[in-house]
Amino acid sequence: MDPQLDKLKFDSAGLIPAIVQDHQTGQVLSLYYMNRAAIEKTIETGKVHTFSRSRNRLALKGETSGHFEFVKSILADCDRDALVIKVEQIGGACHEGYYSCFFRQYERGAPDFKTIAEKTFDPDAVYKK
Amino acid sequence: MDPQLDKLKFDSAGLIPAIVQDHQTGQVLSLYYMNRAAIEKTIETGKVHTFSRSRNRLALKGETSGHFEFVKSILADCDRDALVIKVEQIGGACHEGYYSCFFRQYERGAPDFKTIAEKTFDPDAVYKK
Repeated sequence: MDPQLDKLKFDSAGLIPAIVQDHQTGQVLSLYYMNRAAIEKTIETGKVHTFSRSRNRLALKGETSGHFEFVKSILADCDRDALVIKVEQIGGACHEGYYSCFFRQYERGAPDFKTIAEKTFDPDAVYKK
Repeated sequence: MDPQLDKLKFDSAGLIPAIVQDHQTGQVLSLYYMNRAAIEKTIETGKVHTFSRSRNRLALKGETSGHFEFVKSILADCDRDALVIKVEQIGGACHEGYYSCFFRQYERGAPDFKTIAEKTFDPDAVYKK
């Protein structure tokens, strides 16, 4: 077992938030939740695994799309209750077809957030085979 | 009232996670939690405000240290249940004296995460006046 992981603080549901970031540009791609098993599997395989709260199971990011996230480094914060995972992102991180999930920008006075990115893939083609 | 904020998804405690990022380098500085009032105050003042779960109140980031975070842009993710706030960081974001709270790096086989940053200020001098 890995003593570094013993020092992490998981919440009452056994989860810790993990910010996934492009290792070259610094762009934030997604915010996930991981349990200890997901972190261990991520370290073991070098590919990001999450704990899917909706499916209540471990999930390999990219298992359907092939859009894997290859781990370059893992950081913990001062309180050890949050992670940053720097990755090489294949395809795009977002199930809506964008490279990053954070494609909506707040604009003062607007009725809604504005989409500021172009899709990098067609989600219908990728997810509905 | 701001209709864009009506579309955000807050958790059962009325909070949404907010990733704070250096607007120039992309370095992730902190992960905070905000309620709607904190977001409104952040937009109104241009300085990051959080909801402090430990103090159970709105908190201006930098209120003790002077290490304000000036907002450059606010992004929401696909599900509208997480934010990225790009900021100009004064001093440093971390109460331990580091520019970023994410100063610990995982290293396979090590007994603990390794500190990979130098302190940018003396927290004793800043916080214990």
